[in-house]
Order: sequence, then structure tokens, then C-alpha cells
Amino acid sequence: MKVGCIYGVGLGPGAQDLMSVRADRLIRQTRHIAYFRKKGRTGHARGIVEGMLGDAVELPMEYPVTTEIPFNDPRYKALLSGFYEDSVRQLCEIVEGGEDAVVLCEGDPFFYGSFMHLYTRLKGRVPVKVVPGITGMSAAWTATGQPVTWGDDVMTVAMGTLPEDNLIQKMADTDALVVMKIGRNLGKIRRALEEAGRTDEAWLIEYAAMDKERVMPFREAGDVAPYFSILLIHGNGRRP
Amino acid sequence: MKVGCIYGVGLGPGAQDLMSVRADRLIRQTRHIAYFRKKGRTGHARGIVEGMLGDAVELPMEYPVTTEIPFNDPRYKALLSGFYEDSVRQLCEIVEGGEDAVVLCEGDPFFYGSFMHLYTRLKGRVPVKVVPGITGMSAAWTATGQPVTWGDDVMTVAMGTLPEDNLIQKMADTDALVVMKIGRNLGKIRRALEEAGRTDEAWLIEYAAMDKERVMPFREAGDVAPYFSILLIHGNGRRP
Repeated sequence: MKVGCIYGVGLGPGAQDLMSVRADRLIRQTRHIAYFRKKGRTGHARGIVEGMLGDAVELPMEYPVTTEIPFNDPRYKALLSGFYEDSVRQLCEIVEGGEDAVVLCEGDPFFYGSFMHLYTRLKGRVPVKVVPGITGMSAAWTATGQPVTWGDDVMTVAMGTLPEDNLIQKMADTDALVVMKIGRNLGKIRRALEEAGRTDEAWLIEYAAMDKERVMPFREAGDVAPYFSILLIHGNGRRP
Repeated sequence: MKVGCIYGVGLGPGAQDLMSVRADRLIRQTRHIAYFRKKGRTGHARGIVEGMLGDAVELPMEYPVTTEIPFNDPRYKALLSGFYEDSVRQLCEIVEGGEDAVVLCEGDPFFYGSFMHLYTRLKGRVPVKVVPGITGMSAAWTATGQPVTWGDDVMTVAMGTLPEDNLIQKMADTDALVVMKIGRNLGKIRRALEEAGRTDEAWLIEYAAMDKERVMPFREAGDVAPYFSILLIHGNGRRP
């Protein structure tokens, strides 16, 4: 009996034409398409592929919780774990029925993000293939109109959710810097940048590669930043 | 009088269908296509777009030097600088004649690579647009079949050309690690990994996303590595 395949497909940063040709083909041809979303929302990933789906059967996977419970609360882990197990069960049913399914992944499937929690549960059980994507950070440095790394530059990617001391150390000890997961961590990130002496080099990019794209020196950032925000410091390596 | 535009187009890691839909369209439609290559070679970027060009006029830009002169020799800088100036002059002629030109860039144009040396000289002089691409490192972690970063993981990208002490420190002080520019630095990188105590976590990926793709534990790497080699250590953050 034929078994299908799960494709974890990177959508890139948000513009439909910044997904890969391979992703574009898989999405247009698939009969089953799955994506994460918050309850009651369209889902950002689903929005990116608007107009591409034909009559594919849609499988929205709705997070039982996002930020209502702190992530170090055991209930958070249990709820999410159960949610991923349920999603995997539904995906496996499709594949064991002989059909393929595409799981939409914002950015690149293996670079942060939620797909990997499905992936580790699917792997070894059914066939899974992953299509890489352009990361949100690539769109962010492209938006600044300035190369991010040159020559021997070191680049560090850190999450705004890290403790302040870690952030300070990471910011001080690199050439190029990317900080994601900014949201409610903006105040802490601002203090850490000051402490590391790098505020004047920093840029904030909101909604990179999307319609609402906005680039500003970090000094001009307000007190809140949208979910799709990336902080960037450019490297400055050797240049002939 | 109409002025054209230079497009710096990210090709992604090497498979033709891993370039973005936007890149694919620009390359198929352009009348002028420029790319870097070593003297006497086809050029890797040119190879990726084989079959896509129609009757576009090709502008190969041939490096006057690659590794024959050490990069800290003043002659290296002078030769490369002159070469970039010449290339920019040729590109400007096209654009000032009212036509567009696509410059092919392996990976992502603003993430290491040579295009940025043209970009900084073109910017402010003629219109330039940049199309981001999937990086070689994304293809590398995809090839390992294992997510590279989870939760709060810190990721560090470092070049094998760095001094050994710097490499040791960067390797020891991160969750996920990417090392590029391996080539003749393999011995130094091996010693640094040992010193940082991370050899057993490291993978070597050769020709990621290309026909010759090969993934191996770093311990099994030989004494030489091809130009398209990436060393990778996966992060191991929180996972519900």
C-alpha cells in the first residue's frame, strides 16, 4: 500500500513571491494543507498562500495557548505537547491513507518556529521532507539596504526572551547581531543594548518583506513592537 | 530619459528550484545578466541558472585573484578594488542606457559574498534592488534532517578564517553554531572544536542542496573539505 509524505515547506518572510519555486509548486499541487494559527484568526501562514490553494483540504492547527500561561509552567508544556500529538495524529492519517500533506512554515522550517515540534514526532513514523525558506532575518537586513556580514564578521542570533545579562554579553561580543522575539521584551532589550554600548548601531525592522514593512533606527522605536519585529546590527568587516 | 535598475538576486543554496519565485521571474525576463566567476571557469552562479536565460546578454565578472595573494596583502585589496570598480562601470552603462541588469548572487546577497562590494559602489549612483535568498546554511541544516535552533537557543555564525583563539571562544559560547569558509582552515577548526569540547556534536555538510550533497559527523571528515562545506552544531533548546 502506498504511503504519502509530509512536506514541511518554508514560506519565507511573508511576500508570496519570496517563497521558493519548489515551495510554490508543492503548495499549488497539494491536496492537503496544514498550518498553525491562533484560535479565531486566519493564520499568518495561511494568509501568505492566499489564492494558491485550489480545492485543497485545509487542516488548521489551532494553538491551545500562546502567551496566556508562562512557558515554564508545566501546564504550558502539557497543553502544547498534547496539541502537537493531536496534530501529528491527523497528519499521519492523511499520509497512511496514501496522500501527501503540506505543512506551511513561516520563514525556514528548521530555524526556530513550531514545525520542528511536529517534525520530531513525525520522523521515523512517516516520510517527511523539509523545504528550506528565506528567513525573516534575511528580509530584515535586505530591508535596511545594507549588507549584514562582511569578510570575517561573526554574526549572533539571540532571542529577546533571554535573561538580560545574557543579552548584554551576546550584544557586546559579536560583530553582526540579530534579535528576534522582541514583543514584550523590548524594555529589557533596550537596557541591554545601552549596557553593551551598541544602541547607536541598532535598527528595528517591523514586518520585513510585508506590506507594512518599516525600518527605523532603534533609538526611534516606541514602547511596543509588533510580533514581526527584528533588531539588527550590521557587521563591518574587511571590504576591498 | 529612462534609467534602468540593478537587481542583486539571491539564488539560494544551489538547487534551481530553491531560488525564490521573484528571483526566478527576474532571471527569466532580464536582458542583461552578470555574475562572478574564476577565470577559465563556467562560474557556479551561472551554472545554477542554466537553461533559464533565453537570449540574455551575459556579463561574466572574472576575479583577478582569489587565493594566490593573501587577503591582508595591499596588492590584494588594490586588485579587487579595481576589479569591482570596473564591474560597476559596466553595470552602470547598462542602467544608464535605460535597461535593467540582474546580478546573480549565490545564497543571500547581503550575507557574506561578493555582491555587497558592488552594492556599496552602486548605491546612490543608480537604482539597486536586492532580492534575498535561502542561505547555504539553511540548506545545510535541512540536509542534516534536524532543526538547528529551538526556543531560546543562541546561534553563532563564524568564519573558519578567524584566529584559532576566537574560534574556540565562539564555539564554546553558543548553543547552535555555523562555521563557513572551511577549506584550508580545516585543521585549525578541528583543533578549536576539540579545545571547545564540542567535536562530538559537530556535523560537516558538503554541497548542501546540490547533487553531491553529503552529510557526515565531523569526526569522519577527512583532511580536506570542498569550498561548499559548512560545519554545524544543532541547538537543543526547550521543546514541549
